[in-house]
Amino acid sequence: MSQAGHNIAKDGRNSFVLSKLVVVGAGLIGGSFALALKRAGVVREVVGLGRSEVSLQQAVQLGVIDRASTDWAEALADASLVMLAMPVGQMTAVMQRMAPLLGAQTVVTDAGSTKADVVSAAFANLGAAMANFVPGHPVAGAEKSGASAARADLYEQRCVVLTPLPQTHEAAVQCVRTAWEVCGARVFNMSPEQHDRVLAGVSHLPHLLSFALVHELAQRPDAQQYFDLAAGGFRDFTRIAASHPEMWRDIVLANRTALLAELDCYEADLRILRALIEQGDGDALHAYFERSRTARLAWAEQQAKITQKL
Amino acid sequence: MSQAGHNIAKDGRNSFVLSKLVVVGAGLIGGSFALALKRAGVVREVVGLGRSEVSLQQAVQLGVIDRASTDWAEALADASLVMLAMPVGQMTAVMQRMAPLLGAQTVVTDAGSTKADVVSAAFANLGAAMANFVPGHPVAGAEKSGASAARADLYEQRCVVLTPLPQTHEAAVQCVRTAWEVCGARVFNMSPEQHDRVLAGVSHLPHLLSFALVHELAQRPDAQQYFDLAAGGFRDFTRIAASHPEMWRDIVLANRTALLAELDCYEADLRILRALIEQGDGDALHAYFERSRTARLAWAEQQAKITQKL
Repeated sequence: MSQAGHNIAKDGRNSFVLSKLVVVGAGLIGGSFALALKRAGVVREVVGLGRSEVSLQQAVQLGVIDRASTDWAEALADASLVMLAMPVGQMTAVMQRMAPLLGAQTVVTDAGSTKADVVSAAFANLGAAMANFVPGHPVAGAEKSGASAARADLYEQRCVVLTPLPQTHEAAVQCVRTAWEVCGARVFNMSPEQHDRVLAGVSHLPHLLSFALVHELAQRPDAQQYFDLAAGGFRDFTRIAASHPEMWRDIVLANRTALLAELDCYEADLRILRALIEQGDGDALHAYFERSRTARLAWAEQQAKITQKL
Repeated sequence: MSQAGHNIAKDGRNSFVLSKLVVVGAGLIGGSFALALKRAGVVREVVGLGRSEVSLQQAVQLGVIDRASTDWAEALADASLVMLAMPVGQMTAVMQRMAPLLGAQTVVTDAGSTKADVVSAAFANLGAAMANFVPGHPVAGAEKSGASAARADLYEQRCVVLTPLPQTHEAAVQCVRTAWEVCGARVFNMSPEQHDRVLAGVSHLPHLLSFALVHELAQRPDAQQYFDLAAGGFRDFTRIAASHPEMWRDIVLANRTALLAELDCYEADLRILRALIEQGDGDALHAYFERSRTARLAWAEQQAKITQKL
């Protein structure tokens, strides 16, 4: 009956098995996905594809993938699931190369941090495989990157957003959803545009603001004096300023419309705050900070409840 | 010989003893100072003064202070050291009330997050006691506040900035420096203006930016959707948005000139970043993020070395 995943034994999560997982880009994100599925015993073989032979061999040595392949046709023809986990900027090139080599039943998903651009690239390049493509985004990560940073528990209790399209085969969506649930993630569905708008606000913009703070201080002649007195607040605020430059270049360019809209909203609020400071309006500043604090504490409480539940 | 601290047995740190420490505001900052000195066995009695009877009684129950007093004259007359650890906005009122009651040998210090305004207030209000006043700022804190958050190890390996003036008695500076060193802190001297400029950049501005991000998102009708997908980057970036509103109102107002200057620099850099995004200049964005990442990693490495050394 199902049009996708006939080589996936799957009648309920207990019997979910992927005979062959292909990971394109065996770094933090793809590597952690592979490790989680291997730990759960639901994948027979993990094959790595990628542009860097050195990185792939490192991933093999670390046990993140079973073997590296340079033969894309061999790797993809009988794959159960392909996870695209390279930087978003390589998406079009990888899809173009991959499309004619994909098995008819192979399910494809991705882990790109932006979704509208990935969906466009897929429409332009995947052809018949489009119906088995399930765009996704694990909302997890770290400032570290590479296979050596991969770990089997990265996705536990994390959100994963899937943005299937009306034409996406339901069996393909189920396959990807189940794989993420096996990794311990909480899976949400939304539209690509909604995903990009929300992530611009809670992830892409904070990264931009954090990069900018460190950048601005670092270029000063007396930067060392500033860094010497930087403490815990600075540490946490700037943790994400050590994020992967290539990945963030790609994210920022891919999602620039939503991101610039978020930046507009943020700068408007910052102008209000600046005016309160210039006016010396202590009561309004207190109320402003109180609203932030209340919202941040409520968010933390909500997160704690989710963690306890799982 | 020394003009301050004759009731402080102090010939080397080993014999440093405070017969009576008075803490005005026995919250996180003052309470942790008291706990650290008590743990080290260098203080015979800790007396708490403050505006809230309830908070002081809580501090007694928690063992943060030995007793609370409502009689400022009794508390201050024979004090070895007075730590002013209430919000900066109360500084003038507390100094006015305290000045005529201080013993001639009593050393006074503070823990205010801004220094130029505290020094002005001290000049205006402390009178003869000015020579025994050592302005200070422990660059440590947490989003929590109150005596229940106080802990003896809060200042271990943290920076404390002292901003003594030309007329400050050297014995008073030594007393305060030794007390902080006993708490495990690293003590730096600089001018009040230099302190305020540096802290505006690495602490006050990040707090402002973090408060603004949460504030802007929280006021949206669909805020919940954003908070649902907020992950680790958001968590760290916004930790300081849960900071104490009254404390931050006072800091922002006290240091507004330096803070607005830092905000100007930051917004100028953000405009450069915005232009790169609008132009879609991937190479320049990559280089920008790379510079931030390099600086942030260098900072983290420097911090790790300091921690290992101590």
